[in-house]
Amino acid sequence: MLREVQDEMLCLPGAGASLLEISHRDKLFVEILHDAQNTLRSLLGISDDYSVMFMQGGATLQFSAIAANLLRGTGKRAEYLLTGSWGKKAINEAKKEGDAVAIFDAKESNYDHLPTSADYSVSDDAAYLYYCSNETIQGVQFQDEPECPESVPLVSDASSDFLCRPLDVQKYGMLYACAQKNAGPAGVTAVVMRKDLIEKADASVPGYLYYKNHHDNDSEWNTPPTFAIYVLGKVARWLRDEIGGLEAMEKINREKSGSLYKIIDESGGFYRGHARPECRSLMNVTFNLPSDELTAKFISEAATHRLAALKGHRSVGGIRASIYNAMPREGVETLGQFMTDFLSRNG
Amino acid sequence: MLREVQDEMLCLPGAGASLLEISHRDKLFVEILHDAQNTLRSLLGISDDYSVMFMQGGATLQFSAIAANLLRGTGKRAEYLLTGSWGKKAINEAKKEGDAVAIFDAKESNYDHLPTSADYSVSDDAAYLYYCSNETIQGVQFQDEPECPESVPLVSDASSDFLCRPLDVQKYGMLYACAQKNAGPAGVTAVVMRKDLIEKADASVPGYLYYKNHHDNDSEWNTPPTFAIYVLGKVARWLRDEIGGLEAMEKINREKSGSLYKIIDESGGFYRGHARPECRSLMNVTFNLPSDELTAKFISEAATHRLAALKGHRSVGGIRASIYNAMPREGVETLGQFMTDFLSRNG
Repeated sequence: MLREVQDEMLCLPGAGASLLEISHRDKLFVEILHDAQNTLRSLLGISDDYSVMFMQGGATLQFSAIAANLLRGTGKRAEYLLTGSWGKKAINEAKKEGDAVAIFDAKESNYDHLPTSADYSVSDDAAYLYYCSNETIQGVQFQDEPECPESVPLVSDASSDFLCRPLDVQKYGMLYACAQKNAGPAGVTAVVMRKDLIEKADASVPGYLYYKNHHDNDSEWNTPPTFAIYVLGKVARWLRDEIGGLEAMEKINREKSGSLYKIIDESGGFYRGHARPECRSLMNVTFNLPSDELTAKFISEAATHRLAALKGHRSVGGIRASIYNAMPREGVETLGQFMTDFLSRNG
Repeated sequence: MLREVQDEMLCLPGAGASLLEISHRDKLFVEILHDAQNTLRSLLGISDDYSVMFMQGGATLQFSAIAANLLRGTGKRAEYLLTGSWGKKAINEAKKEGDAVAIFDAKESNYDHLPTSADYSVSDDAAYLYYCSNETIQGVQFQDEPECPESVPLVSDASSDFLCRPLDVQKYGMLYACAQKNAGPAGVTAVVMRKDLIEKADASVPGYLYYKNHHDNDSEWNTPPTFAIYVLGKVARWLRDEIGGLEAMEKINREKSGSLYKIIDESGGFYRGHARPECRSLMNVTFNLPSDELTAKFISEAATHRLAALKGHRSVGGIRASIYNAMPREGVETLGQFMTDFLSRNG
């Protein structure tokens, strides 16, 4: 895919110029934009009831935009399930726009688990129910959508597990994903939103945060991030045409993460998973070693096998192996072999 | 420059991976980010009193962010000079945040000119004075900064003429430019802002719009648009090291635009410039022909000479030749020859 980007860098087929040189209004770019939207629609089975928009500003901008569009001025309460670091950031931005409350917060156990439906209750008249489907730092991932009354739009930050498996979009009012984990380069966020919700927002919202502007102008209200959309479209096509769709991608992701969790579970307690088994993430495998010294040794020895970026976030410690879609099976196998070997030498 | 981007697409020197694959926290990307900042600092002579930030969301997001940071909650009035389409969009967003008024508006003459200092008066306690240094649709460009009391921060949308000539940054409270005209690809906006102004904003501002977040975290508060920053840095280096700096770039731009304005002025009224001569833009040459039929004929014949995107915006009509930094002299010469030839056949 990167090779294709490279081949087309100086001259986009049909354009006689680089994508970086043509206008976002150029017919060729508009085709690229529509192709990216349509490939996402076919991958995820997104119906016409939903808009597919491409925005800038990452998940962080969505934290504010969601509350500005769906909470501001409604007199309602937005309800949040806090299962890790990203959810906490989201609610902090929402509080600037109105009444936002955590109806579940796993902080007591350092975000090692997710709620069951018995752990929380959503108000029938909530502005929306918000959750983050995969928390990268803690390595916890919802297996299914949380329970939510039909009257309440379900909103999901799917940034770190978008396109890792099939998704039932009809269950959502809105979901979004900044692209840089599974879907493309930094600089573009895919937003999938029910059209009736887009219409409900107050026009006082700052223009760039007002979804209606993006929807009504088919993501060309202002200049979109053309290159990032172009690459996202190629990634989506690769998933559909090379991998064979999201079921096939999920199977690969289950194999990859499963092989690492198996090593953890069979290590006799040497490796201790951070997430409870039923909440384990397909994308971020988090675990601790018996001591800080062994953790440091693990990281430095791993580096000599070209295994990089394994240090866990300071709030969880230990190791975090991020194995997004683009991580090949071979990379995970190398890590697994290293883990087994390290255990045999230090266990 | 594009060839360099192409060469490095699969493997960024020193990384063993593509820039599209490495983390924004990777030392190599942080170096790219700092290099882009420092090259802008050296090109424009930006002092340490100013922060150089890279943001997403284009000029449109800045329209809101400026008012949210510098107007919201101050009880002051923001004052705008409206000299074309972009200024009008900016004030409309500012009005959502507080009291924003146009102290000059050239709409009566369809935005064909700029104010002299006799045409407006800035309040000593204004929140800021806002203007757009180059209006792309109308083709009017300020030759110097507008007069502004020292007590009032001068704010400029420099999106379409950034890096086209030297700029005295010390005169500004803040200036910004989305990159896609002169500075790089769509998806990144360079923001140059006096540090004391950054500190003054109210923390209730949506997080992504709150400059302090970006400044305090050196443009890595959230994931920045890595590829766009990388290309922007290369463009800035090209300007400094290949072109020889902004004085040299201005000279080229004066030659390029001057050659077209000369043809307009010597056409005996066949070509009529939209902008008054003293307000003419180095970047966007706007002119009308004697009839809509001749305009249509001009555009269609020009296309056969590979001269594209010449149609003026509907609000001005006629022709708009956008000749940003990246447009080579040869392209402008081809257009000039075509204009002369078209005049001799139709004048």
